[in-house]
Amino acid sequence: MTIKKILELVAQGKISVENALKELRDFPYKKLKEGICLDSHREVRTGQKEVVFGKGKSLTQLITIVSSFPGEEILITKISKEIGIKLQNTFESGTFFEVPGLFVKGKKIELSPPWKEEGEVIIITAGAADLPVALEAYGCAKFFDLNVGIILDVGVAGIHRIFPYLDILDNAKLLIVVAGMEGALPSVVSGITGKPILAVPTSIGYGANLNGISALLGMLNSCAGGIAVLNIDNGFGAALMAARILQSCNLINSRT
Amino acid sequence: MTIKKILELVAQGKISVENALKELRDFPYKKLKEGICLDSHREVRTGQKEVVFGKGKSLTQLITIVSSFPGEEILITKISKEIGIKLQNTFESGTFFEVPGLFVKGKKIELSPPWKEEGEVIIITAGAADLPVALEAYGCAKFFDLNVGIILDVGVAGIHRIFPYLDILDNAKLLIVVAGMEGALPSVVSGITGKPILAVPTSIGYGANLNGISALLGMLNSCAGGIAVLNIDNGFGAALMAARILQSCNLINSRT
Amino acid sequence: MTIKKILELVAQGKISVENALKELRDFPYKKLKEGICLDSHREVRTGQKEVVFGKGKSLTQLITIVSSFPGEEILITKISKEIGIKLQNTFESGTFFEVPGLFVKGKKIELSPPWKEEGEVIIITAGAADLPVALEAYGCAKFFDLNVGIILDVGVAGIHRIFPYLDILDNAKLLIVVAGMEGALPSVVSGITGKPILAVPTSIGYGANLNGISALLGMLNSCAGGIAVLNIDNGFGAALMAARILQSCNLINSRT
Amino acid sequence: MTIKKILELVAQGKISVENALKELRDFPYKKLKEGICLDSHREVRTGQKEVVFGKGKSLTQLITIVSSFPGEEILITKISKEIGIKLQNTFESGTFFEVPGLFVKGKKIELSPPWKEEGEVIIITAGAADLPVALEAYGCAKFFDLNVGIILDVGVAGIHRIFPYLDILDNAKLLIVVAGMEGALPSVVSGITGKPILAVPTSIGYGANLNGISALLGMLNSCAGGIAVLNIDNGFGAALMAARILQSCNLINSRT
Amino acid sequence: MTIKKILELVAQGKISVENALKELRDFPYKKLKEGICLDSHREVRTGQKEVVFGKGKSLTQLITIVSSFPGEEILITKISKEIGIKLQNTFESGTFFEVPGLFVKGKKIELSPPWKEEGEVIIITAGAADLPVALEAYGCAKFFDLNVGIILDVGVAGIHRIFPYLDILDNAKLLIVVAGMEGALPSVVSGITGKPILAVPTSIGYGANLNGISALLGMLNSCAGGIAVLNIDNGFGAALMAARILQSCNLINSRT
Amino acid sequence: MTIKKILELVAQGKISVENALKELRDFPYKKLKEGICLDSHREVRTGQKEVVFGKGKSLTQLITIVSSFPGEEILITKISKEIGIKLQNTFESGTFFEVPGLFVKGKKIELSPPWKEEGEVIIITAGAADLPVALEAYGCAKFFDLNVGIILDVGVAGIHRIFPYLDILDNAKLLIVVAGMEGALPSVVSGITGKPILAVPTSIGYGANLNGISALLGMLNSCAGGIAVLNIDNGFGAALMAARILQSCNLINSRT
Amino acid sequence: MTIKKILELVAQGKISVENALKELRDFPYKKLKEGICLDSHREVRTGQKEVVFGKGKSLTQLITIVSSFPGEEILITKISKEIGIKLQNTFESGTFFEVPGLFVKGKKIELSPPWKEEGEVIIITAGAADLPVALEAYGCAKFFDLNVGIILDVGVAGIHRIFPYLDILDNAKLLIVVAGMEGALPSVVSGITGKPILAVPTSIGYGANLNGISALLGMLNSCAGGIAVLNIDNGFGAALMAARILQSCNLINSRT
Amino acid sequence: MTIKKILELVAQGKISVENALKELRDFPYKKLKEGICLDSHREVRTGQKEVVFGKGKSLTQLITIVSSFPGEEILITKISKEIGIKLQNTFESGTFFEVPGLFVKGKKIELSPPWKEEGEVIIITAGAADLPVALEAYGCAKFFDLNVGIILDVGVAGIHRIFPYLDILDNAKLLIVVAGMEGALPSVVSGITGKPILAVPTSIGYGANLNGISALLGMLNSCAGGIAVLNIDNGFGAALMAARILQSCNLINSRT
Repeated sequence: MTIKKILELVAQGKISVENALKELRDFPYKKLKEGICLDSHREVRTGQKEVVFGKGKSLTQLITIVSSFPGEEILITKISKEIGIKLQNTFESGTFFEVPGLFVKGKKIELSPPWKEEGEVIIITAGAADLPVALEAYGCAKFFDLNVGIILDVGVAGIHRIFPYLDILDNAKLLIVVAGMEGALPSVVSGITGKPILAVPTSIGYGANLNGISALLGMLNSCAGGIAVLNIDNGFGAALMAARILQSCNLINSRT
Repeated sequence: MTIKKILELVAQGKISVENALKELRDFPYKKLKEGICLDSHREVRTGQKEVVFGKGKSLTQLITIVSSFPGEEILITKISKEIGIKLQNTFESGTFFEVPGLFVKGKKIELSPPWKEEGEVIIITAGAADLPVALEAYGCAKFFDLNVGIILDVGVAGIHRIFPYLDILDNAKLLIVVAGMEGALPSVVSGITGKPILAVPTSIGYGANLNGISALLGMLNSCAGGIAVLNIDNGFGAALMAARILQSCNLINSRT
Repeated sequence: MTIKKILELVAQGKISVENALKELRDFPYKKLKEGICLDSHREVRTGQKEVVFGKGKSLTQLITIVSSFPGEEILITKISKEIGIKLQNTFESGTFFEVPGLFVKGKKIELSPPWKEEGEVIIITAGAADLPVALEAYGCAKFFDLNVGIILDVGVAGIHRIFPYLDILDNAKLLIVVAGMEGALPSVVSGITGKPILAVPTSIGYGANLNGISALLGMLNSCAGGIAVLNIDNGFGAALMAARILQSCNLINSRT
Repeated sequence: MTIKKILELVAQGKISVENALKELRDFPYKKLKEGICLDSHREVRTGQKEVVFGKGKSLTQLITIVSSFPGEEILITKISKEIGIKLQNTFESGTFFEVPGLFVKGKKIELSPPWKEEGEVIIITAGAADLPVALEAYGCAKFFDLNVGIILDVGVAGIHRIFPYLDILDNAKLLIVVAGMEGALPSVVSGITGKPILAVPTSIGYGANLNGISALLGMLNSCAGGIAVLNIDNGFGAALMAARILQSCNLINSRT
Repeated sequence: MTIKKILELVAQGKISVENALKELRDFPYKKLKEGICLDSHREVRTGQKEVVFGKGKSLTQLITIVSSFPGEEILITKISKEIGIKLQNTFESGTFFEVPGLFVKGKKIELSPPWKEEGEVIIITAGAADLPVALEAYGCAKFFDLNVGIILDVGVAGIHRIFPYLDILDNAKLLIVVAGMEGALPSVVSGITGKPILAVPTSIGYGANLNGISALLGMLNSCAGGIAVLNIDNGFGAALMAARILQSCNLINSRT
Repeated sequence: MTIKKILELVAQGKISVENALKELRDFPYKKLKEGICLDSHREVRTGQKEVVFGKGKSLTQLITIVSSFPGEEILITKISKEIGIKLQNTFESGTFFEVPGLFVKGKKIELSPPWKEEGEVIIITAGAADLPVALEAYGCAKFFDLNVGIILDVGVAGIHRIFPYLDILDNAKLLIVVAGMEGALPSVVSGITGKPILAVPTSIGYGANLNGISALLGMLNSCAGGIAVLNIDNGFGAALMAARILQSCNLINSRT
Repeated sequence: MTIKKILELVAQGKISVENALKELRDFPYKKLKEGICLDSHREVRTGQKEVVFGKGKSLTQLITIVSSFPGEEILITKISKEIGIKLQNTFESGTFFEVPGLFVKGKKIELSPPWKEEGEVIIITAGAADLPVALEAYGCAKFFDLNVGIILDVGVAGIHRIFPYLDILDNAKLLIVVAGMEGALPSVVSGITGKPILAVPTSIGYGANLNGISALLGMLNSCAGGIAVLNIDNGFGAALMAARILQSCNLINSRT
Repeated sequence: MTIKKILELVAQGKISVENALKELRDFPYKKLKEGICLDSHREVRTGQKEVVFGKGKSLTQLITIVSSFPGEEILITKISKEIGIKLQNTFESGTFFEVPGLFVKGKKIELSPPWKEEGEVIIITAGAADLPVALEAYGCAKFFDLNVGIILDVGVAGIHRIFPYLDILDNAKLLIVVAGMEGALPSVVSGITGKPILAVPTSIGYGANLNGISALLGMLNSCAGGIAVLNIDNGFGAALMAARILQSCNLINSRT
C-alpha cells in the first residue's frame, strides 16, 4: 500500500485519519526481539530480497531474524564458521558455505566447482587467494537469480591468462573484478574490454597493503574509465549492484 | 568542603594554616594499592558518581577499587566477560552485563528487553549489531537515574522505520544516535527532528570502515546541525554527557 | 502544515488526493537558480533559522540565496574576505565580520570587544590564535539569540588563568571550549567544573598537529567525561548545538 | 583490423609475417611530440570517445593533443581557467566551461541552466557547493550522448526535498549521486529508490572532511546496497561508467 | 612458441587460423581446480621459476598447485607453521622452513647456520629480530641459485659492527638491507659503500612503528642515494629483484 | 605570593577571606585586548621567560602583546616575513630574523655566521635545508642565555663529516639533532656518542616524507636509546627543553 | 682501546698495521649464533649497560644473548609472560617481572609496592591502566641506578590529585609523565611545575585513540614547553634518556 | 688516502699520531659558509658525482655550493623556475631545465625531443603528465653518462601501446617505470618482460590519489616480482640507483 493509496482511502472515507496514520506507521517493518527491526517493506520499495549483514550480530539475533521469515528466501553474509554451522543445524532448509561465509535458507544455490565461466555477469579474480570474496559475489548473484559466471586467477602478473576469455567478456553485460595487493586488474581489464566494471578490492596482501587499502586506492585512482568501486572484500555489494543495474535496465525481472 | 570554606575556617582561627593545607591536600582522593588513586572528591566537585573505565585495568586493580567503595554505587565499563564474571563472583551485590560489558554494584538496574521506547533521553541505533554500544549507553544512563528509552535498528537503509517514533523523538530532550558503517543516521535524524543529538560512532563494519573511523568522520562532517560526537563505541560518554546537560539545565537533580 | 493536517483535510474532503500529494511535494523548499534548493520548511520542522554554509559556494550562488530572503534574518558562515565584502556591498542591511568570516543580514549583532564574560553559554579559548573560531561560535550564538559570554586565552600552559572565572562557569548551562594544538583544555575544564562541554578543535598548530587532527583526537579521547566534539574549526556547529539543547530543555524559546 | 583478421590475411598470403607484425605494432596509437602517445585504437577496442585528463598536462601538451584530432570530437577534463581560456582562444570550434573545468571541441553541448530534471541518468547533488562536480558529470554525459537530467541541492539535512522527484528517480535507469561532507545522500537515496547508484564523493567540507575522504569512506561503507563509488570529485568517471553500463545493456548505441 | 613463430606457421600454411588462435589461447597457463590458474608460460616469458605466494591460500589450494608440478622446483612463501608442516607431510621431497615460513620442493637448499658471510648478493640485517625476513630473502636467493651471503645484527645503534665487513661489501654486486624500527641502516650503508641497495623494511617495533610503516617511510625518504625499496617484510621480493638484476646484467644464467 | 603565604596572612588576620580569594584570582595574568590573556605569573611559577607562539596570531594581537611588556625581553616565534618586518618597524628595540622567523625585543642576540661550534648545548643538522629550524633553536637558546654551538650539514649520507666534532660532542651536555627526510641522524649520533639527544624532525623532503612525518616516525622509533622527540620543525621547543634540563640540573641559573 | 691508542701503538711499533686493522675490526662486538651480533663495545663508547629489546626475538635468541654475559648485569624489555617465565627458569639469578614485561639478571631490583614517591626522577601516570608502562620505566631506571620515585593515577580528570606532590616535583630533576587517551597530563604538569618532562604516550584507550596515536600527537603538540616525547609505551626509552641526561650533567656516575 | 694508508704512514713514522688523527678528520669534506658542509670525499668513497638536492635550500646556499666546484660537473635537482633562472644567470656554463627542475653546470646534456627510445636503461611513463618526473630521471641518467632511452605515455588504459617496444625492453638492462594514479604500469611491464624495474610513483592524480600515495602503495604491493620502489616523484633516485647497479655489475665505468 503506497502513500497515494492511503490518501485515496482517506478521501473516500474508507479509513479514518487516525487509521491512516497508524497504517503509515505500522506495516513497513517487523519489530523482533533482540534489538532487531526488520525492514519488511524494502522488497516493495526497493525490490531487494532480504539479505542480512551477519558480522557483529550474535547467534541469537541471527536465529531471531531467520525465524521471522518462515518459508521465505533469506541470505546472511560475512558469518564465521562457528555461527554458520550452528545456523545450519538450527534450520534444516538452510545451508552454510564456509569459504565465502554465506548462509542461505529457502533457496538452493550451488557454489561448488566446476564453476560456469560465462554469463551476463562475469566475476574475475586476480589471484587464487581472492576466491572467498569472489564466491561471496557469486553466491549472492545466484541468490539474486543472476546469470553469472566466474573466471579465476588471471591477475596482471600473467595478464595473458585473460586472453582466452575475451569473447566471454565481450558477451557479458557487467564485469565484477576482484583483486587484492595493488588492485591493478580492473584497470587492465577496462583497457582491454571497455565493459563496465564493478571493482572489489580484497584484503589479500601484507605490509603496505594496509588490509586492502592499497587495492582500494588503486581502483579508485584507475587511469582507465568505466570502473566503480565497492568496499574492501564486499563481494555481496558487487552482486547487489549488478542485480540492481540489470533490473533497472530491464534485463532481469527478479526482485533483487 | 570548598576552598572558600577552608579559608573561612582559617580566618576564624578554627583550623591552623598547617591543617588547612593538609586539608586541601588530603581529602580529595583515596590512594589505594595497585597504583590507584581514586578521585573521591569528584562527586562534590563535578557531581559525577564513580564510574571506572575498566579497559586495561587488571582484575586485581578492579577488585581493589570496588572494595574501597563498600555500600556505594559503582559502575565499571568496557570489561571482558572473563573479568566481569570474576567480579560478579567476588561481590555478591554486583551484576555483570555481558553484552555491553558493564559491571554495576550497589544499585539495581535492568537492561533486559523489553526496553522502554520513550523518555527524556532516547537512544537510537542504526543496526542490530550496534546493540552492545547502545546498551552501554542505556545501562550508564540508568545508573545516572536518567529517564531513558531505546529505539533499535532504524538505520538509513530503511529510514521509514523511524517514522512511527517521531512523537517520541519530539517529546525527548536529547537523542543519542548510535551508528556504525557510514554513520549517516545522525544527519538524517537531525534533519527530521531538530533535536540535539549526541552521536556515537561504532566500530561495526569492515574494510574501509577502518574500525569505526568512517562512521566517526561521517558524524563530524554532518551537513545537518545539532550534532556533537563522542569517541567510537563510547556509549558511556554519551550517557554521561546527557546526564550533565540535563543536570546543568535543571531538568534532573541526580548527581551524575 | 503537517502530514496529519493534510490527512485531515483530505478526510474532510477539503482538498483532493491530488492536491494533497501536490501539497506534500510543493511547499517545503524554494528552488532557486544556480543549483540551489533552499529548505524553507526547516524552520517549521526543526526550528532552525536559515544559516548557509558559505565555503565552496560562488558569489553568484550566495547572492541568489540571500536575495530569496528579503527582510528575513540570514547568516552565512566560512566565507572569504573577498566574497564577504562583495556581499556587504550588495546588501545594505548586511554586515561582514572578517575575523570569523561571517555575513549577517536582517539582524544586528555585535562582535567587537569588550566581550561579555558571562552567560548561559560560555565560550572559552585556549589561545589567542583560536579567536576566529571562538568568534564564529560567538556570532552564531548571538544570531540564535543565546545569552552568550566569552573567555579568552586560558589554555593549560597557564591553567590558573581560568580560576577567576569559576563562578561564571558554575552559573553557565553549557560551555563551548575551543582549543588547537593538543586540545587538552576541555579535559581540564571538565575535571574542574563538571559542566557539559561542547569541544571545538581548531587547526591552530603545525607539524604533527596535522591541521587540527591532534586536537580533534585529544578531545575525542578525553579521560574526563561530559565532552562531546564538533568538527575542526566548527564554531557554528557548537553554537547551533547549544541553541538546540537550550531550546529542547525549554530554557529558550528562540527558533534556532 | 583485429588479430583474427590479420591472421587470416597472413594465412591467405596477402600480407607477410613481417608486415603482420608491423601491422600489429603500428596502427593502434598516434605518437605525438611532447611526450604524448594517443591510444587512437581505443574507440574501436572499448567504444570510448577521446577524453583527455587535463590535470598535470601543460598547455603545449594539450594543444598538441587537440590538434591531432582535426574535425573530431574531443573532451578535456579538470583544467584551470587559465588553460581553458587559452585553449578556447586557440581552437575556434572549442568551448571552455569554467565551473566544471571542461573543454569540448567538435561538438556542441549546453551546460547552462535551466537544467533538464529528468532522463535515463539522473545526477543528484547534496548541496549547492557540489555543483562543479555535478556539472562535470553532466557535461561528460552530454558529450557521451546520454539522456541525462540533474537535480540539485537535496541533501539529507532536508531530505524531504527529494520527495517531489521520486517519480523521476523511478523512471531513471541509473542515478549519479554527488555529495561532500559526510556523503550520506547515496545511502538515503538507495533506501528510498532501490535504483543503482554511482556515488561521487566531493571535497566540499573542511577539517575532519580531509579533502573528501570522509565522504568517500561514508559511501564505501554505506549500509544501503546498490552503491558503487568513484574517486573524489570524479564527475567524469561517473558519466563514463553510466555510458558504459547503458551501452553494455543495449540501451544506447553511442560509442562511449 | 612466440607470436612471431605462430605467424610464420600460419603464413606457411602449417597451421590454420583457427588453430593459431587456439594456440595463442591455450598453452600459456594451467587451469587447475580450486580456483587456480597457473601461469606456466611465465618461465619462458620472464625467466622466473615458479614461486607461489602462500598467504591467504588454503591448504587444499596449495596442495593442488604443488601437485601440478611433479618433479619440478617450486617455492611457496609466507605460510604458517600449521600449513607448512602439512605440506611437508604431503610431499616427501618437500621441506618446510619455519623461521622464514618457506616451503621448497624439488630442490635442496640449506638455511641453517653457520651462514656464509660473502657473495655477489649480501643480505644485512639491523637487528636479531629481523632474522625471519632476512632468511626469507636468503632462502629465496638460494632457490634462484644466487651466490648469496648474510651479515646479521649490525644496526645503526652500533654501526661500527659493520666495519669488519667493508671488504665483503665492496666485493658484492648488490646489497639487501633488512631493517625495522626507524629503518636507518640502508641510509648509513649507502653512505659508506656506494653499492646499490635493495631495502626491505620489517614490521619489527611497536607503537609509532605502525607495523613497519616507519621503517618503510624512512627508507623511501633516505637522504642517501642508491636505495630502492620493497614492501614491508618482503624478503622474497628483494631476492627476486636481485636475481632479475644479475640475470639482466648477464652475471648469472639461472632462470629466475 | 604562594597559596601557603596567602593562608598565613588569612590566619594572621592580615587579609580577609574575600581579599584572599581576590588575591588568588587577580594577580597571575594580564588581560589584554584582542582576546589575549597573558600568563604573567609563569615566570615565577615555571621560570620561563615570555615567549609567544606567533603562528595564527594577527599583527594587531602581536603588537598588543609586545606593547604590554615595555622594557622587558620578549621572543616571538614562527612569524612570516611580512609580520616580522612590521613588528620591527613598530618596535625600535626589536629585531626580526627572517630565516628562522623569530622576533626578539629587549635583548641583543646574534644569529649571523660564523656560528660558534661548541657549547654546553650543540645543535646538529643533517642538511643545509634544515638551517631555518636549527637557527630557530639557536636563536631561542641564545634568548635563554644558553651556552650553545651549532654544527651544520653532517647527515648520514656522509656520516664521516661528524667525526671531527666528536670531542665537541663529548664536552657538551645535550645535543639537539635536527633532521628531515628519514630522520636517521639522531640514531647514528646516539650510537656514536651516548649523549642525550633532543631530536627535531623537519619538514624537509617531499612525497612520502608527508611533510615531516617520515622524520618524526624515524626518530620516535629509533633503535638507539637516549633520544626524545619534539614536534616537526619545533626548534624553539628543543631550546626550551634544553634550558629546562640545564636549569633543573643546576647547570644554569637563567630563568627559562 | 680507542682509535688514538691504537695509532700510538702503531707509531711505537708495538703493533703492526695489519694487527691494528685487525684490532679495529675485531674487538668491539661479540658475534653469537642465532643471528646475533652484540655490541659489547657500547658500554665503553656510550656508557650504556646491556639492555636487550626482547620483542620479536625468539626464546633461543634471548637465551643465547643472556648466556653470553655470565656474571654480568643484563636487562631484557618487552617480553611475553611465556618467554619471561622460561628465561627465569633457565637462569637462576634472573627475575621476570610480569606487569612491565621485564627480565633482569645479575642485579636485584625491587618493583613491588609500596613504591617510593620521591627522587631525582619522578614517574607520574595519568591512570591506573598506565601502570605497566610506568613500571617498565621504573624498573629500567632502577637497573640504571637512578634515584627514582613514582606517583600514580593523577590524570587531568582530577588534576588536584597532583597538588600534594608539588614539593616532590619541585625537588626532582626530571619528570617522566606517562599517559594514554588524550595525553594531556604532560601539558598540565609542565604548566604547573616548569620541570623538564619526558612524555611517554601509552596505548591505553580505544576507538579514535588509534592505539596510542592520539596521546602521542597530544604530547608532540603540547602548548606548554619543556616536553620531549618518546615512542608509544616506551617506558624503557624514558628511563634511558633520564639516565643519559643525569650522567651528562654530572649528577650520576653510573654507566647507563 | 684510506685508513690503511694512514696507519702505514704512522707505522713508518712518516706522520705523527697527532697528524694522523688530524688527517682523518680534515680532508673528507668542504665546509662552506651558509650552513653547508659538502661531502667532497663521497666521490672516492661511493663513486657518486656531486648532486645537490635543491628543494628547501636558499638561492644563496645554492650559489655557495656551485661556486665551490669551479670547473667541475654539478647537478642540482628539484628547484623552482625562479631559482633555476637565477642560477643560470649567475653561472654562464650552467643550464636550467624547467620541466624537470634541473640545473646542470660543467657538462652538456640534451633533454629536448626527439628523445632516444632505446638504451641500457629505458624510462617508461604511464601518462603524458608524468613527463617532468621522467625527464628528471632522464637528465640525471645522462649526467651519470648512462646509455638511456625514454618511452612515453604507454599506460595500462591502452597497454597495447607498449607492444611495439618489446624488443627494446628485451635489450635493456634495467627499466625505470614512472606512473601516477593507481601506479599499475610496473606490475604489467614486469609480467610482460621479466626485466628488473625501478618503479617511480608520481603525484599525478587527485582525490584519493593522496598526492601519489595511491601509486606508491600500488607499486609496493605489486603482485608481479622484480620491482623495487623509489619515493614519489623521485626521478633522480631511480637514475642514481640505475647508475649504481650498472657500475656495480661492471657494465659502466663512470663514476656515479
